[in-house]
Amino acid sequence: MMITKSALKFIKSLQLKKNRIEHQCFLVEGTKSVQELLQSEFEIDFIAGTRDYVDANKSLLSQFDISEIKPKDISNVGSYKSNNSVIAVVNIPQIDKPHLSLNEYILALDDVRDPGNLGTIIRIADWYGIHQIIASPTTADFFNPKVISASMGSFTRVKMMYVDLHDTFKEYTGSIYGALMDGVSLPKVKFTKGGIIVMGNESIGISKELQSLLTEKITIPRYGLAESLNVGIATAVICDRMRSES
Amino acid sequence: MMITKSALKFIKSLQLKKNRIEHQCFLVEGTKSVQELLQSEFEIDFIAGTRDYVDANKSLLSQFDISEIKPKDISNVGSYKSNNSVIAVVNIPQIDKPHLSLNEYILALDDVRDPGNLGTIIRIADWYGIHQIIASPTTADFFNPKVISASMGSFTRVKMMYVDLHDTFKEYTGSIYGALMDGVSLPKVKFTKGGIIVMGNESIGISKELQSLLTEKITIPRYGLAESLNVGIATAVICDRMRSES
Repeated sequence: MMITKSALKFIKSLQLKKNRIEHQCFLVEGTKSVQELLQSEFEIDFIAGTRDYVDANKSLLSQFDISEIKPKDISNVGSYKSNNSVIAVVNIPQIDKPHLSLNEYILALDDVRDPGNLGTIIRIADWYGIHQIIASPTTADFFNPKVISASMGSFTRVKMMYVDLHDTFKEYTGSIYGALMDGVSLPKVKFTKGGIIVMGNESIGISKELQSLLTEKITIPRYGLAESLNVGIATAVICDRMRSES
Repeated sequence: MMITKSALKFIKSLQLKKNRIEHQCFLVEGTKSVQELLQSEFEIDFIAGTRDYVDANKSLLSQFDISEIKPKDISNVGSYKSNNSVIAVVNIPQIDKPHLSLNEYILALDDVRDPGNLGTIIRIADWYGIHQIIASPTTADFFNPKVISASMGSFTRVKMMYVDLHDTFKEYTGSIYGALMDGVSLPKVKFTKGGIIVMGNESIGISKELQSLLTEKITIPRYGLAESLNVGIATAVICDRMRSES
């Protein structure tokens, strides 16, 4: 069945956060992300695929109501010109509270603004076996379609919760590591069995207020002249060291 | 002096590789990249800035011919809607041959296609003190405006040369490290004083033909379920280890 005009309009409206909040829905776009979605516990509202996509994925989709969508409509209502396969509307799940154990690592994001960076960080968390991300309310929205896409399916395996980081850190009794310009050189950092790793805003890093609550300050050594590393890159370099040394 | 229509047209034409090759010019866009450009040895053909930019940067620009450009024109001819400051047309420098020493690390890119990934890798090379990148001719163009922008100014400090990687590896007598799915776990890799680090295509990795010329295969250990790491992320994680262990 061809998708209705009002359904197209509804999909397009979910590009905006206020509409995602109102309808408690978000978009998952493209073959790879939808494939991971189908294997997850997310509740799918509906799926719209191009004729080619639907024909090629009949068995995968047998238990869903599928609408057909024209390639030009999918580019029009979706986030990417290059998506010419499938788009899904998914219910935003009930938000959990973070589970802060001393034997597990979790990531904390202080005002990471760029959706591409957030998506990349979710994928890195998933690679390094980190299941929870806590973030300041000013951090990019987990359900932004660009975040979902950049996570390459990892949004299905990593939970993200928006909290007051200051209060959370004050209550936490384990190690709180943070990436800064004037900390201990990464290869010399002692990683415990679990803790919180804090990454800061793209321009100003971790806010002063939170810096005072860090128990370990980490600096990634620089051997050349670039002014900084991207926050996603820095997250990966630190997580890699954290996993091999803890 | 207000920029001419033909100059605007010329700038826009440099978005395409064939025009960059024909005119031997490329674009540098935005405050940060142009600032680094002015401190480099690149030959600037001309600069066009918005009135606000020119007023705020008079001393910096005193030795250049500056045209004024309207914000709407700069978004129109440039690569980014968010650039409302400055755009420079720069001569493509004479291409050097790579200098393959055994005491220095260089990066080799086998068919890295995405301009954003290439720009990120240039920035990472600069952070880790790597001055040369060699790449297969199918790798994204160094002078693509998206590459230049994503490098965050590091394009001024890292040289990139397109070569036949197969021939180059055959002649090279040092270590050739490559990132693969079935190699030695990164923390166990012994890094020598110098060598080549090979990173492969976003989908298929390092081509079979080049895999057989690697002297060391590296795998970044995975602790979770993400299918892969982005090639820029993988480059950073390997370079970080290479620098701290060699």
